[in-house]
Amino acid sequence: MNPKALNGLDVEAMRMAVATVGAQPEAARARKAARVRWVERLKFRAYVRNHTFEVDEPSHLAGEDASPTSMEYVLGALGTCLATGFVFNATQRGISIRNLEVALESAQDNYFTFLGLAADGHPGFDEVAVKLYVQADAEEAVIREVWEHTVRTSPVGNSLGRSVTIRAEVDVVP
Amino acid sequence: MNPKALNGLDVEAMRMAVATVGAQPEAARARKAARVRWVERLKFRAYVRNHTFEVDEPSHLAGEDASPTSMEYVLGALGTCLATGFVFNATQRGISIRNLEVALESAQDNYFTFLGLAADGHPGFDEVAVKLYVQADAEEAVIREVWEHTVRTSPVGNSLGRSVTIRAEVDVVP
Repeated sequence: MNPKALNGLDVEAMRMAVATVGAQPEAARARKAARVRWVERLKFRAYVRNHTFEVDEPSHLAGEDASPTSMEYVLGALGTCLATGFVFNATQRGISIRNLEVALESAQDNYFTFLGLAADGHPGFDEVAVKLYVQADAEEAVIREVWEHTVRTSPVGNSLGRSVTIRAEVDVVP
Repeated sequence: MNPKALNGLDVEAMRMAVATVGAQPEAARARKAARVRWVERLKFRAYVRNHTFEVDEPSHLAGEDASPTSMEYVLGALGTCLATGFVFNATQRGISIRNLEVALESAQDNYFTFLGLAADGHPGFDEVAVKLYVQADAEEAVIREVWEHTVRTSPVGNSLGRSVTIRAEVDVVP
């Protein structure tokens, strides 16, 4: 065990990693790419860098429930983004975390729009409630400050909380 | 092989599944829940219903790159949501799909806000370009119509394209 480790992380190495990214101005505009391929029925596999993950629909939507749905990945990703940010920010401030869990609850209205059962409506998330449960070696006021900073600077939180421009096109292959 | 199957899906069973959901008015307001637990360092595990998935950060951010990042899950989930919707809608219209792939490219600015290197800025996605490549037994105009309907009614697309209210709180455990 690295004697300089905090929350399992080498704080000095983490600061150097951040400084290295910060020295590249083009890194401020982060770019990502993904591909999605059809496996069968309503199963799909997403490819991002050297990773893949699978998506399916539950049985009440004619899927086989082999994997989470797309919306479940988004909800979980909001939680993991906030959890990652909290551990990242707390560690940089020298706070030791003993225990951490995030609970999320969401509602979307009107889901029937996706199913073709309603002509109008917003089938995306209307609201998401997120609650962080945390035990850490710091004053409660400091923990609240780190959490508020984390929420404010969360990439997934900001992607959902503001409007992202989606440019969608189709290439019909003969 | 079910003789009534189209794109591997039993069209009649799919229509009945949708009708069954449609008969429950409360299903229009779909609710989802997720939990996120800390595994170690910057690794987290998300729990949704009977499924789990893991998230990590790449090595240039002090992670070990064991899994996709939270933002990569969101980008991939946008692609899988659009792909799912397209197969779902095309199948209901009796269109046989021979091949399908979705490519996504995104940009976020300013990522440095998440890293604590910039005080202001929007660390979420600014824009995402999505391109569907598809080979299907239908007129190009029909395929374009199905795609446009799919984009308009996509749950993940609508979650990113509009503003979701995020209510975040913290429970500091003594």
